[in-house]
Amino acid sequence: MSTNLEARSTAFRAYVKKLSSYNQAIAVLHWDKATQAPRKGMEARSEVIGTLAGEQFKLATSKEMEEFLETLSEPAALEALDEVTRHTVLECKKEYDRNKQIPAATYQEYVVLTSQAETIWEEAREKDDFSLFQPYLEKIVDFQLAFIDYWGHDGKNKYNTLLDLYEPGMTVDQLDPIFTTLREKTVKLVAAIAESPNKPDTSSLKRHFPVAEQEAFSRFVLERIGYDFQAGRMDRSAHPFCTSFNPGDVRITTRYDANEFNTALFGSIHEAGHAMYEQNINPRLLFTPLCDGTSMGIHESQSRFWENMIGRSLPFWNGLYSDLQKAFPAQFDGVSVDGFYRAINEVTPSFIRIEADELTYNLHIMIRYEIEKGLINGTLKVADLPTIWNERMQEYLGVTPPTNALGVLQDIHWSGGSFGYFPTYSLGNVYAAQFAHVMEQQISGYHDLIAKGDFAPIREWLKTNIHQYGKMKSPQELVQAITGEGTNATYLMDYLEKKFSAIYQL
Amino acid sequence: MSTNLEARSTAFRAYVKKLSSYNQAIAVLHWDKATQAPRKGMEARSEVIGTLAGEQFKLATSKEMEEFLETLSEPAALEALDEVTRHTVLECKKEYDRNKQIPAATYQEYVVLTSQAETIWEEAREKDDFSLFQPYLEKIVDFQLAFIDYWGHDGKNKYNTLLDLYEPGMTVDQLDPIFTTLREKTVKLVAAIAESPNKPDTSSLKRHFPVAEQEAFSRFVLERIGYDFQAGRMDRSAHPFCTSFNPGDVRITTRYDANEFNTALFGSIHEAGHAMYEQNINPRLLFTPLCDGTSMGIHESQSRFWENMIGRSLPFWNGLYSDLQKAFPAQFDGVSVDGFYRAINEVTPSFIRIEADELTYNLHIMIRYEIEKGLINGTLKVADLPTIWNERMQEYLGVTPPTNALGVLQDIHWSGGSFGYFPTYSLGNVYAAQFAHVMEQQISGYHDLIAKGDFAPIREWLKTNIHQYGKMKSPQELVQAITGEGTNATYLMDYLEKKFSAIYQL
Ligand SMILES: [Zn+2]
Ligand SMILES: [Zn+2]
Repeated sequence: MSTNLEARSTAFRAYVKKLSSYNQAIAVLHWDKATQAPRKGMEARSEVIGTLAGEQFKLATSKEMEEFLETLSEPAALEALDEVTRHTVLECKKEYDRNKQIPAATYQEYVVLTSQAETIWEEAREKDDFSLFQPYLEKIVDFQLAFIDYWGHDGKNKYNTLLDLYEPGMTVDQLDPIFTTLREKTVKLVAAIAESPNKPDTSSLKRHFPVAEQEAFSRFVLERIGYDFQAGRMDRSAHPFCTSFNPGDVRITTRYDANEFNTALFGSIHEAGHAMYEQNINPRLLFTPLCDGTSMGIHESQSRFWENMIGRSLPFWNGLYSDLQKAFPAQFDGVSVDGFYRAINEVTPSFIRIEADELTYNLHIMIRYEIEKGLINGTLKVADLPTIWNERMQEYLGVTPPTNALGVLQDIHWSGGSFGYFPTYSLGNVYAAQFAHVMEQQISGYHDLIAKGDFAPIREWLKTNIHQYGKMKSPQELVQAITGEGTNATYLMDYLEKKFSAIYQL
Repeated sequence: MSTNLEARSTAFRAYVKKLSSYNQAIAVLHWDKATQAPRKGMEARSEVIGTLAGEQFKLATSKEMEEFLETLSEPAALEALDEVTRHTVLECKKEYDRNKQIPAATYQEYVVLTSQAETIWEEAREKDDFSLFQPYLEKIVDFQLAFIDYWGHDGKNKYNTLLDLYEPGMTVDQLDPIFTTLREKTVKLVAAIAESPNKPDTSSLKRHFPVAEQEAFSRFVLERIGYDFQAGRMDRSAHPFCTSFNPGDVRITTRYDANEFNTALFGSIHEAGHAMYEQNINPRLLFTPLCDGTSMGIHESQSRFWENMIGRSLPFWNGLYSDLQKAFPAQFDGVSVDGFYRAINEVTPSFIRIEADELTYNLHIMIRYEIEKGLINGTLKVADLPTIWNERMQEYLGVTPPTNALGVLQDIHWSGGSFGYFPTYSLGNVYAAQFAHVMEQQISGYHDLIAKGDFAPIREWLKTNIHQYGKMKSPQELVQAITGEGTNATYLMDYLEKKFSAIYQL
């Protein structure tokens, strides 16, 4: 490498480190606001976050950044750089270009709009009045179309540009067959389950579970699966989340319901799945934008794998059930491990996505995917959404939401302009099943290890094949390298059919 | 105000708000590091704090700041500004000048030195080896002298320049007579107490107090005295502290000792005293450097007032003792309120400042004051410190530390270059007694209110006369306005003589 290039590269890494320090600081301020900060300090805190976010944005879009990227993204320069710096340049360039292609005034207008829209959406949901939200959503869709014009698209489908924001490389061409598979097989399976006379008894899960005891049990389970409390912590918040400051400090939050067993425990395992991804990223990526999950879909594959494929599996509870009964003797008195296993896997078509079971969840996502595609490609109008929504709910799940609050108004995502995000939830399930399929083959005694509570080999496999890379590998590269094929929904459906046929004795 | 000046003033306030946002963010990062952050995230956290502190320093010393201060500190401009902006200009100018007068290279060298010195000090204390620390302390003293040269001094005493850093306007001319009064009266009183046959029985305070129960009782007491938990929170840390992000978010920390009752409770009350000051600063000062206590001494007057003059008073426990006995029935079984009151006020000459009682505390401070004055004025050498220290301990307290670890090496302050800070601890006591004397006259039924647990009138008085102003009034202005005189140690000594004569039946 020329001395000049080396000096530029070093300066660039220092600049990126500064940028990353702002991101980490802002994340701490957010976490503190959601979990610790007293009520009266909230307003000033929001202003501080706003100010630092503004400074961060200035750094990310500065003339200095532009000059770094111009020099360092020359093909000869890129080739001469070490691989971490090369990927960092490419990642920063992607971000920089995205930011720069949108005129500052347009973006400012959009920020104001989505901020208002979130407030209005809350009001609309409370009043069950879609017409309040409709004009805002129409404008937000128009902005998405304008952004797609600024950013350009692949000529195949405009929606691909939005998918790429959350799942780089993902396209409608790949997603359509995935959702077709999911729909055909899931709808049939749900119908068969509905007719099965062998329903699980879930009454034990609705007993009283003191919050402190739930918390203790969640901690016990997270320690067992290998969430590192020396590199994280678990707190409470209104909406559970995982936030990573650096691989040595990845925190999760949980929400407790004293009369519902599933919420806290499976929520904690889910967030711990996200967190273990971040905890195991190679530390050499610290202070670069690569120190992060490679996509929302791959991230969700980790949380869903631990939550559902481990946490809701029979071997897992065979190994843990005596501990559960010790922790909650009265609540699970007379409940067999099999009865418990069936209860936590109950399938019931429901209105609300975040309360959906493992099987019907993908149907909720599919409705959103189809609507987003329709809105972006002009085949659907915002005004039609309540009707479309309810028709699809009836078609796929066999239920019709009695209100829009329980239907099209239930999610915050669109009010914030997150179009293209929803599909990553189902992709997470699809990836997780593909990964689990390979793990079963590559990790000897896979199911026995789960029953023994020895998760080290599984964690090691995930770290080696996925976690360590951060954003150094794209989702497609990961999936291809691990499975030898592309994204494939068959594994998920095979897994679900096998699991739920057994539970419901179909 | 001219349109131009108005525009400059508005831009300046926005700039200062940004600076304040950095300070708030850095304070949150520090608090989180001390109370919440997991072990493995510490190193990256320190780097993030370092980076943001560097950015903050750049903002505070920028060309832009210089230009603001040049325009706005013109006499005509100052006069035209509103009072908050005027005081903000003056405060920023003081800070800016201090920073700019020291060459960047010198300051950088000093930062490295003090950072090393803190590590060496820890080692020296552990090994009880002053000679390890001595060369570092010598260099630190040389830096203090160099700083005094850069900053200038009043021609009377070089040490005044350092005092002014922590207690603006305070001088050796004012402090010497204060400490003379304290010394003469305290040494006599301590001697009389030593000879008194009426010693309190402190055995109940050394029983086992489960930490969770101590925490609950501390919370109860803080709520009673009026620390606002809606604008703060209490956590645990190795060293107790109070940190203010904004008046709506002022947090304290506590340290617990399961076998010592005093540590946590009186530590909590002390920190809550600091916190109530910050919680009651007028919100119009938010996002300016004026949103802070006016000096270390005034700050300490608030913590000492609540800790000692309220928290260690008989009326306070007359009102609270049944609650204490309910909280710790076994531990205080058979202990009368009077016996408890005498126990928490035990006077014993001891080696360690932070464990000292209300009376002997000032003697510990006096020794440090005399040594600092001597070092800065060249009448003492660093090499002589261990000898001088032990001689003064013997002279004032009647005990000689058996080791330097229990003597001259006990405090962290000098390793960090904090010269001029120690006297503010005693000033806090002196101010507190002066304020309490006025309160007794101005608040009707003062002692009855304390016994009834009705602290609203006292809080209101403190807010009206002290808290609300933040840095808008200097310590001298506050003391003069409240008491009609200057700093006067007589009130403190009258209070202490009366209190301890009764306790020890002198
Ligand atoms: Zn998730
Ligand atoms: Zn204090």
